[in-house]
Amino acid sequence: MSIVFADRMNKVQKSFIREILKVTENPDVISFAGGLPNPLSFPIKEVKEASEKVLSENGNSVLQYSTTEGYLPLREYIAERYYKRFGLKVHANEILITNGSQQGLDLIGKVLLNKNDNILIERPGYLGAIQAFSIFEPVFNSVPLNDEGVDTAALRKTLDQCNPKLFYTVPNFQNPSGITYSAENREKIADILKERDTVLIEDDPYGEIRFMGEDLPPIRSKLKDNSIMLGSFSKIVAPAMRLGWICAKGEMMEKLLVAKQAADLHSNYYAQRVVYQFLMDNDLDEHIKKIKRLYKNQRDCMVEMIEKYFPEQVKSTKPEGGMFLWITLPDGVSSLDLFNTAIEENVAFVPGDPFYINKTGMNTLRLNYTNSDENMIEEGIKRLGKAINEIIKVSVYSTK
Amino acid sequence: MSIVFADRMNKVQKSFIREILKVTENPDVISFAGGLPNPLSFPIKEVKEASEKVLSENGNSVLQYSTTEGYLPLREYIAERYYKRFGLKVHANEILITNGSQQGLDLIGKVLLNKNDNILIERPGYLGAIQAFSIFEPVFNSVPLNDEGVDTAALRKTLDQCNPKLFYTVPNFQNPSGITYSAENREKIADILKERDTVLIEDDPYGEIRFMGEDLPPIRSKLKDNSIMLGSFSKIVAPAMRLGWICAKGEMMEKLLVAKQAADLHSNYYAQRVVYQFLMDNDLDEHIKKIKRLYKNQRDCMVEMIEKYFPEQVKSTKPEGGMFLWITLPDGVSSLDLFNTAIEENVAFVPGDPFYINKTGMNTLRLNYTNSDENMIEEGIKRLGKAINEIIKVSVYSTK
Repeated sequence: MSIVFADRMNKVQKSFIREILKVTENPDVISFAGGLPNPLSFPIKEVKEASEKVLSENGNSVLQYSTTEGYLPLREYIAERYYKRFGLKVHANEILITNGSQQGLDLIGKVLLNKNDNILIERPGYLGAIQAFSIFEPVFNSVPLNDEGVDTAALRKTLDQCNPKLFYTVPNFQNPSGITYSAENREKIADILKERDTVLIEDDPYGEIRFMGEDLPPIRSKLKDNSIMLGSFSKIVAPAMRLGWICAKGEMMEKLLVAKQAADLHSNYYAQRVVYQFLMDNDLDEHIKKIKRLYKNQRDCMVEMIEKYFPEQVKSTKPEGGMFLWITLPDGVSSLDLFNTAIEENVAFVPGDPFYINKTGMNTLRLNYTNSDENMIEEGIKRLGKAINEIIKVSVYSTK
Repeated sequence: MSIVFADRMNKVQKSFIREILKVTENPDVISFAGGLPNPLSFPIKEVKEASEKVLSENGNSVLQYSTTEGYLPLREYIAERYYKRFGLKVHANEILITNGSQQGLDLIGKVLLNKNDNILIERPGYLGAIQAFSIFEPVFNSVPLNDEGVDTAALRKTLDQCNPKLFYTVPNFQNPSGITYSAENREKIADILKERDTVLIEDDPYGEIRFMGEDLPPIRSKLKDNSIMLGSFSKIVAPAMRLGWICAKGEMMEKLLVAKQAADLHSNYYAQRVVYQFLMDNDLDEHIKKIKRLYKNQRDCMVEMIEKYFPEQVKSTKPEGGMFLWITLPDGVSSLDLFNTAIEENVAFVPGDPFYINKTGMNTLRLNYTNSDENMIEEGIKRLGKAINEIIKVSVYSTK
């Protein structure tokens, strides 16, 4: 007897990051590999109070089955926040509650992608999106990022060449690069997409966590149709809740609802009620301010330590928000080789390779600063600097 | 501009039941249509205490990202319960926590089904499974149920004819029919499947809610390989939690884990911790006894009222557990026609049609007894009896 699995399962791999996390379980290892929020930012007491309240007042409905769309007042809250932040008019019917924005990617893949459809992602791109879309066996195309956001000349050219079904972007504090698209870049992207059928996906898990500079409106502000926004409570309330949302319209939303129903009926309703109660009884903006202060200190510390301990040839982004720094080693230096040296020094990160489609030996890597305190950041970056110096020496030697 | 959706979305329909539920929002309508547990069975106070405890003791980890597999102690609890109930040796590594067993169906479809693969379901079959599998565009085949369970002659024949990838079953208090496979029927099914590659899926949301007769072991007890069991906390703790599990082995589990990771990283971890704490601090068997007492009274009342108010030509199952009764009208009487008459009498149910593949005008229908008190059951069945008498009169008249 033998089981023949579906073809699609040959196209998708276990998350590289989750494999790395196993190496970092050793308590001596300082890890900048994960993408975990700082637990100091979790509203533990407030969640406790919210749970107590919703169960006391409405236990019978809070523990029952509910609608596929999600809890209406929570969807209204999300819609109103788009208006408050960006003047963006969104109706609650355009919001579908999902299990984090990761499930949004799965549902979008389901309703849009036939096998061998072209899709477009950023280079480097978000691993979770690569994994989620892979299940639907598309052809991946990518467009490079620069300091301003997307390389728009390359975008236009790739769109002309492959007419992708969707273009997946993370315009704010992109994962993995930390890059934020400029206002001008956003307008250009909207202009380019206006004439086309390609659906723009704007994933925004980190947008609320801006600790420098000013918020920029979603590209969707300039692009009425063929646009989907994804959001998440993971980085502003708590990731364990697995609550995010899809913002989409019309027939797209109808199809997404059918797919959501088939996938798991609806998202955890108890958690939806608890999070909504938390939002009602607390000032979310004040809560986010605390997170920003925390993360800015951690980011500043990492930037400072990189200047102190990394050799000059190494380049680093200086993100205005979010959770990641992106490091570029000198040409020809593989971050995968560096990873092995760094593990010997008891420090970990995510090498660049998995963020690219079909590329290996990349000289880039991702560092997370939100889940280490300042002492760990100093010690970890010191160790990593040592490993980088070693690997550069070896690389120079081996190319002579 | 126009969006071209994936082909698969043409194959799946909105849940018929959810459409019906809209009709039943009228407060005058007594509805036996849904499949909701009785909220009287929800452990509200206990969930409140469990949430308070896990957040007080481990808030930092309880609100953080977690592993795709699910909370290990919860998986161990589930594995041990299989042993306790059936002497079935299951390792915690064979348990994956999902968003209800509905997500289990989505993940199984993902890892097993290529377009046009044959699959086999019960006739009548569970709507949620038809919907979940439809996404993966299989060819549906069905095998009829009888009082003993599956018609094993038909099973053998269909397996020979189409060699299906999977055979989806609900052996305990089946949805929609309420039928339970006998011990002999289970053994026969195991014997027939032993020689084959078809994967047996045993979905068991109601198995714990047996209020008459004796528990029967899963078919899996007699079938080591090519077998997947699904379970759920929805009917024994609370559906809002969206917590269920898949029990599978080896390569199957590896593929399911990759699919789960891509789908939503992991299930709500806060809810997993709360439910586990509830299980630790309370006696689940005592809790289930309360649910059984409640449902047995409701079931007995509905059986009695059917005897009192339905004409003799109407047949009804008398389930030993679970949540549903299955009604068979005289030949040629359409339950869809009855539905329209019944709605005028302010009583609702689910007509048989959607539980069959490509069949209409069926003379069967599903009644739920768990979400109505005894007064509502008496009044609702009285109204339905009136509607049945009307429709039978019309049918007899029209065939003359």
